[in-house]
Amino acid sequence: MSPEGTVRRPARRLTAGGSESLEEAVAEEVAVALVYNGISHAVMMATPCDLEDFGRGFSLTERIVGKASEIYDIDAEPVGRGIEVRLEIAAQRMAGLQERRRSLAGRTGCGLCGVDSLDAALRAVPAVGQPWPVSRLSIERAMAALPAQQRLNRPNGAMHAAAWASLEGALVAVREDVGRHNALDKLAGALAQSDVAAAGGFVVVTSRCSYEMVQKAAAIGASAIAAVSAPTSLAIETAEQAGIALVAFVREGRLTAYACADRITA
Amino acid sequence: MSPEGTVRRPARRLTAGGSESLEEAVAEEVAVALVYNGISHAVMMATPCDLEDFGRGFSLTERIVGKASEIYDIDAEPVGRGIEVRLEIAAQRMAGLQERRRSLAGRTGCGLCGVDSLDAALRAVPAVGQPWPVSRLSIERAMAALPAQQRLNRPNGAMHAAAWASLEGALVAVREDVGRHNALDKLAGALAQSDVAAAGGFVVVTSRCSYEMVQKAAAIGASAIAAVSAPTSLAIETAEQAGIALVAFVREGRLTAYACADRITA
Repeated sequence: MSPEGTVRRPARRLTAGGSESLEEAVAEEVAVALVYNGISHAVMMATPCDLEDFGRGFSLTERIVGKASEIYDIDAEPVGRGIEVRLEIAAQRMAGLQERRRSLAGRTGCGLCGVDSLDAALRAVPAVGQPWPVSRLSIERAMAALPAQQRLNRPNGAMHAAAWASLEGALVAVREDVGRHNALDKLAGALAQSDVAAAGGFVVVTSRCSYEMVQKAAAIGASAIAAVSAPTSLAIETAEQAGIALVAFVREGRLTAYACADRITA
Repeated sequence: MSPEGTVRRPARRLTAGGSESLEEAVAEEVAVALVYNGISHAVMMATPCDLEDFGRGFSLTERIVGKASEIYDIDAEPVGRGIEVRLEIAAQRMAGLQERRRSLAGRTGCGLCGVDSLDAALRAVPAVGQPWPVSRLSIERAMAALPAQQRLNRPNGAMHAAAWASLEGALVAVREDVGRHNALDKLAGALAQSDVAAAGGFVVVTSRCSYEMVQKAAAIGASAIAAVSAPTSLAIETAEQAGIALVAFVREGRLTAYACADRITA
């Protein structure tokens, strides 16, 4: 049996010396439908592990619910070629979701409709409450500890990870997915089940840092987001607005701070 | 003035030796709304270069239009904090798009709605017509030539590229974006403006290869997709179904074929 999140597939390796058949460990990706109170809302391509965390986290970072307690039940069920994550949410939240969907469909052409929807896309990211300073050493410590915790990545080498670390740099929760946004949503869902105060720590990701990563980390309420690789311009702007420190290119002995840099201490 | 696709942002580098202020070259990411016949359809976060190619390619790979000639006009215009890409498309295609949006909003809860939408997500990818064999040497040649063509990536190091190469491995078109799906959509749009027969070549990407990458490369009609990094399980399945060869981990002197491997020649 393959490790969780990995499947084995036949492949053929071609080199200058000839070709050979082999079996490769491949990261699992399946279609996951998020179904709210019986209504399918979105389909994401994701790794089918920690799907309850995924459903809970997606609902929170997409602001379909305001808090985890507005989700009454979550259940993941294989259906046909994919998986349904079925959530029961508070009636008032469901009404809000349906309103959002109706306005999406009903919007008619006018000079402003594009502005409306650009604004919706760039909706103000709420500021992180009471962010803490984070030290360079804690960030480096968390990043250095991450590979040993990337259990799904080990067999196939193709998973992203998102983790939450305490201000001391100790990893508290790690989640993985073929998609970096999904990994962060799973982390959001895992944290919402625990009693950690998210501002008392920071998010670490194995990828680049784009707008959506910052938006999700801010929704989690973390004091900082630290990435292995580069940030984008919109990620930096959004992090400044939300008051979440953005750190990138984290390596042993060095990192670069791009937003709220004064809160990253030596 | 910064190079296209790059902006300069203040940053602070922290090392064991102390900290210094510097200005960093950062990949540009902006909200881009795709507006069809005056109705905003989707907002993507993208690098604001080659946006007409992006609009054309997105319309084709998302099957909003069936062919490029059903797009009568494309125009990119800054609006507020983002950019609108405004497309005028054939009335019949617009009717189809509105129908799609209505059914999205109107779907009500039942045991099957999730299946419907999983099926929509995994809609059969049309088979590539008359795919050609592709040689290992051509793939390696195209991949080796790519870095020199990644003009947007050079200043900031954070862009993905998607290219189309002839069967001999010569790069014919290269497009870049902070998002790998966007880079591939831009490539699709660029190819649709040229008179190349897409099956007479293959797609090369600087990223991993997921379901959506295969779906887009198949929509382009390429004979193969070759990636620097790993494929996912659903990418392999989809490539087999669509008859597009999937090659990954392309390095000098070696590569691994995961789908339609018999069409990759030594």
